[in-house]
Amino acid sequence: MNEFELIDRLKPLMPGNAATRLGAGDDCAVLDLGVPGRWILYKCDAVVEGVHFTSETQPERVGHKALARALSDVAAMAGRPISALVTLGLPRQFRPEWVEGIYQGMASLARRHNVSISGGETTTNPERIFLSIAVVGTVEQNRCVLRSGGKPGDALFVTGELGGSLAGKHLDFEPRLAEGEWLARHFPIHAMMDLSDGLAEDLRRLMEASQCGAELLASSIPISRAARHRALPGGKSPLDAALTDGEDFELLLALPSNQAVALQDAWKTAFPQLKLTCIGRLADQPGLTLRKGRHVQEMTAHGYIHFT
Amino acid sequence: MNEFELIDRLKPLMPGNAATRLGAGDDCAVLDLGVPGRWILYKCDAVVEGVHFTSETQPERVGHKALARALSDVAAMAGRPISALVTLGLPRQFRPEWVEGIYQGMASLARRHNVSISGGETTTNPERIFLSIAVVGTVEQNRCVLRSGGKPGDALFVTGELGGSLAGKHLDFEPRLAEGEWLARHFPIHAMMDLSDGLAEDLRRLMEASQCGAELLASSIPISRAARHRALPGGKSPLDAALTDGEDFELLLALPSNQAVALQDAWKTAFPQLKLTCIGRLADQPGLTLRKGRHVQEMTAHGYIHFT
Repeated sequence: MNEFELIDRLKPLMPGNAATRLGAGDDCAVLDLGVPGRWILYKCDAVVEGVHFTSETQPERVGHKALARALSDVAAMAGRPISALVTLGLPRQFRPEWVEGIYQGMASLARRHNVSISGGETTTNPERIFLSIAVVGTVEQNRCVLRSGGKPGDALFVTGELGGSLAGKHLDFEPRLAEGEWLARHFPIHAMMDLSDGLAEDLRRLMEASQCGAELLASSIPISRAARHRALPGGKSPLDAALTDGEDFELLLALPSNQAVALQDAWKTAFPQLKLTCIGRLADQPGLTLRKGRHVQEMTAHGYIHFT
Repeated sequence: MNEFELIDRLKPLMPGNAATRLGAGDDCAVLDLGVPGRWILYKCDAVVEGVHFTSETQPERVGHKALARALSDVAAMAGRPISALVTLGLPRQFRPEWVEGIYQGMASLARRHNVSISGGETTTNPERIFLSIAVVGTVEQNRCVLRSGGKPGDALFVTGELGGSLAGKHLDFEPRLAEGEWLARHFPIHAMMDLSDGLAEDLRRLMEASQCGAELLASSIPISRAARHRALPGGKSPLDAALTDGEDFELLLALPSNQAVALQDAWKTAFPQLKLTCIGRLADQPGLTLRKGRHVQEMTAHGYIHFT
């Protein structure tokens, strides 16, 4: 049983209430706590030694990654993060300097985005570091972007470049907070999410939430330099890496195709340092296809491509 | 270095911002997100297999305990919890029924207090279950009770009975949510906190936050049946157990002593099933003393009593 099958099994065991506008299944939960015109976004996320980083990773990068992952989820709803809480499970013999390094990495990122770190719970996890971050943020009610609003015909865009994140980006990426807010303020974004498990897998979730299919254009996928450099003979191709590597933490979004050119133009002025690429479109017919020149290939559910 | 020394070292690495009214150091963080008349309470807390429960503990009780601990912190600020998020670290080979049991335990408690469970993050923690809960709640701004408002002369009260929690209560306790809200609505509570590390240690934190000393009356400490039954020859006395066992999750509060009788009377009507006991008072002079008949003993910083 994988993580997503498990979560599906657990969802009926998650009670709702009047304040909870959106529970499990999107980038953040959405609460209505009575802030005029705004909703509360709410998310937690964890990184674990030996899974998301190694015992060799500099602690500042571990702290950065842990907080950045949670902030990336707020960015994906076009929200603004306000405050983070830290749960840190530590082996009984820990180096205080190492823990300070984790907090320094978090604090530096937090300050850049005016996020407070408003508490820390430390506990024992004897074998390895376990670092969980909870983030609270807010978003204008009429600008909150879910995964579920995509429509057939919408153009699909991604920020940045994809693949090869393990070469370093997964520890150093900057959550796309300014970009997420800007997108929702200036364009009618139908659906948005952040890419954590690879475009092929994450796009399926957006499709499922929006009840659409999708078609990607292989030649348009922005492949990172790391994905190209790490490609080995007999291994994943750079394109496969961009589609399936995971931990990109870029934004994937859908908007009406008649807005695509205006978006491209405005983006270049607003974020001249960061790519925004149209990679395909949402479709009526179910399933995810990849167009490569004249060939159309179907992609399977597991993120990997099997050519048909 | 213990948990509290570590947190003191980390506090300078926790940035604040305009929305954060109170960061680390109380039962919950306090945010002002613009809800008219109300503040947001925000807390996370974790339980770990082999530390807070064993591999033999029924999963429903594990889930209950994890959520109840976080709700207890909201109760201690006189708040109302709204929504919880769950981070669950699982060994690679887990039994789905066991995870469902955890969620059943959480869901049952959550429903009783109209709390939503609005998301779950599952990840890998190979050696043991690691369960972290984040809770968001709200509190009326003029009824939020901190640890820091105690004044010399205030009467000290605790709910329930103390000690021996490991006999079972630590897994099954009910967070004192209705009690915390009622207290702040009807009486000028100066300071409040929940008891997680034992009265002797937790009271020191309230004293430190309030810059007071305190005197406890040994004969007034409400000692639980479990603390009496578990007392062994040569081991902790029942009184020592009540002072130092930890995981009581009762409320400790301070209010003006001229309100003490009125509080006792009103409490009996409002909560006839639950004890509320005056156990001593806050004092001008620093330090924590224990009055036993004619003898006054000083208590040390580590929760254990050394008779002077």
